[in-house]
Amino acid sequence: MSAFSRFTPLANALPSTVPFVGPEAIERQRGLQVKARIGANENGFGPAPSVLAAMRVQAGEIWKYNDPENYELREALANHLGVGIDSIAIGGGIDELLGQIVRLVIEPGAPVVTSLGGYPTFNFHVAGFGGRLVTVPYASDREDLDGLLAAVKRENAPLVYFANPDNPMGSWWGADSVVAFARALPETTMLILDEAYSETGPAGSLPPISALIDLPNVVRTRTFSKAYGLAGARVGYVISTSGTARAFDKIRNHFGMNRLATIAALAALKDQAYLAEVVASIHGARDRIAAIAKANNLVPLASATNFVAIDAGRDGTYARAIVDGLMQHGVFIRMPGVAPLNRCIRVSVGPEADMALLEEALPQVLKTLG
Amino acid sequence: MSAFSRFTPLANALPSTVPFVGPEAIERQRGLQVKARIGANENGFGPAPSVLAAMRVQAGEIWKYNDPENYELREALANHLGVGIDSIAIGGGIDELLGQIVRLVIEPGAPVVTSLGGYPTFNFHVAGFGGRLVTVPYASDREDLDGLLAAVKRENAPLVYFANPDNPMGSWWGADSVVAFARALPETTMLILDEAYSETGPAGSLPPISALIDLPNVVRTRTFSKAYGLAGARVGYVISTSGTARAFDKIRNHFGMNRLATIAALAALKDQAYLAEVVASIHGARDRIAAIAKANNLVPLASATNFVAIDAGRDGTYARAIVDGLMQHGVFIRMPGVAPLNRCIRVSVGPEADMALLEEALPQVLKTLG
Repeated sequence: MSAFSRFTPLANALPSTVPFVGPEAIERQRGLQVKARIGANENGFGPAPSVLAAMRVQAGEIWKYNDPENYELREALANHLGVGIDSIAIGGGIDELLGQIVRLVIEPGAPVVTSLGGYPTFNFHVAGFGGRLVTVPYASDREDLDGLLAAVKRENAPLVYFANPDNPMGSWWGADSVVAFARALPETTMLILDEAYSETGPAGSLPPISALIDLPNVVRTRTFSKAYGLAGARVGYVISTSGTARAFDKIRNHFGMNRLATIAALAALKDQAYLAEVVASIHGARDRIAAIAKANNLVPLASATNFVAIDAGRDGTYARAIVDGLMQHGVFIRMPGVAPLNRCIRVSVGPEADMALLEEALPQVLKTLG
Repeated sequence: MSAFSRFTPLANALPSTVPFVGPEAIERQRGLQVKARIGANENGFGPAPSVLAAMRVQAGEIWKYNDPENYELREALANHLGVGIDSIAIGGGIDELLGQIVRLVIEPGAPVVTSLGGYPTFNFHVAGFGGRLVTVPYASDREDLDGLLAAVKRENAPLVYFANPDNPMGSWWGADSVVAFARALPETTMLILDEAYSETGPAGSLPPISALIDLPNVVRTRTFSKAYGLAGARVGYVISTSGTARAFDKIRNHFGMNRLATIAALAALKDQAYLAEVVASIHGARDRIAAIAKANNLVPLASATNFVAIDAGRDGTYARAIVDGLMQHGVFIRMPGVAPLNRCIRVSVGPEADMALLEEALPQVLKTLG
């Protein structure tokens, strides 16, 4: 049936896009069942038993709105990170925070710099607020810091996005390079330093908090969705100067956080022993994925994340055929969307049962494709 | 510490406002403990045991992102309401949906009509997108339908907000009046018909779905936060023409829903027997609140919601003193923010223990105030 006739011109110009098709939609559309859910960069090892216990014990709290100030969680994160509580802002995952940042900074037509093939949900938010994307190709499968800086200066861009470690390639820069990049930016350019995968990178890849906390134009985003295994809870946070972090209060949905998600995040943060275990499991699964790739004459890229990008050696059509073929076997994976990254497939970590399904299905699919 | 220097002019003009101060903040700021949480229009009777059981059993699902299409929940709601699945859009509570609607419809400077003293979070979103609020006073403690219509026409407003039943007064209009109002609006004016309290109104106050589903300019918003007792889960939905409902896909945070919240909402919708029980409990608690008011020579207003507005007979300063005085006894309530509504206090329903605390504290507070 017809739609309202007076949406804004910007709204009318936007497609009703879904940035990613979910595995549930694939199951419905193709009549298949996902047996190994290793495509969405979730963490199949799941959250800590202590987290699940907290959720079950406190489920009865769900009739109450969450504290709109998110005080306890901000306090716990501030203590964990060694910053003041006002340097933390909470949101419903990094996705929601990215939308808020774009809204705070971008007016229609303003240039926004990101990498060509970088995180599509960020691009979705930029389009949604009428920003103009300026993309910089990856260099050697890493985001190109010099290229990003040059684009920022050329365009006088108010906003640049950089993920470290990177999605979808799993690559990373060392902390010194990241800090140098951030400090080279004009102070009139906000840097989103997306650290969704901060817990799974190698030593030396994560700048210390103190290295950037004095810069009002740097916003670091982190999440409980990846290493902490709470993607479905929707808890992300921002680390920045207090002045910048408090700007989120101007526009955020103050009563928007799920109360049980906050309880889960608090419990997860407390259980650093489990986090260490699960990070070890993630490392193990990365090695397992890499070994499966090599056994099939594909080339796994080094990864600092909870997934591995695998170079399939041909073009995007071929990689897409592998993705579709694996789904026929119930193995859900994804792939980068843009050339030349789309020569790769992308496999998320998961327990051994998932790895075994991949190991079994991949050679069959490759054989079919020839 | 200082803030980023290049936020948009609109962002710079916005205060870092919190529309409501949460009870947790009151506890922290005043060093008091909330014993009866009957101020935020939550439902202290809580969700169904079947809902809590579903959450506990399926807590382990939390490592997965929720289906971005929200297919199962939209399907269940569509079946429940007798509409097509594409007539439903899901969001993180009505609050989030209100922000999305404003964003889809309002450009900076555009007039938005609402009632003077109506839902503050809606006003927060209007300000956040630069809209210009045009307010119409309540008439006899009800939203003034004729006045709202006249303001819409005078201003050629693209958006009008009307809650039925109303918050903060608890009043309502009959279905026929609501339908006549909706049909009298220009088709270039979107009506937000906020039905957060749809389950607790008297017979005849809720227009049938079929009465408005053909109008592309009418968006009905409903929630699992009130009668279903799931305020902390953050699940709301829109009912409209499919064309209008699908417009939310242009801008919504597709992976924004909490997976366990969706599971809870599905379970809640299935347990209509419990809903009937809890609605009876809400009616009982409304009567109890009204009786307590009368016993203290205050005047309870008739209510179609899960709260009762009580006319304290003087001005806003006096009502505020009652609210503050009750909190000294651990009884958390709220009050309308704007005259003449702010002669009232507003008490949400709750179990008998909460009612007993109110009954004990109110006469002491009134005696102190003299």
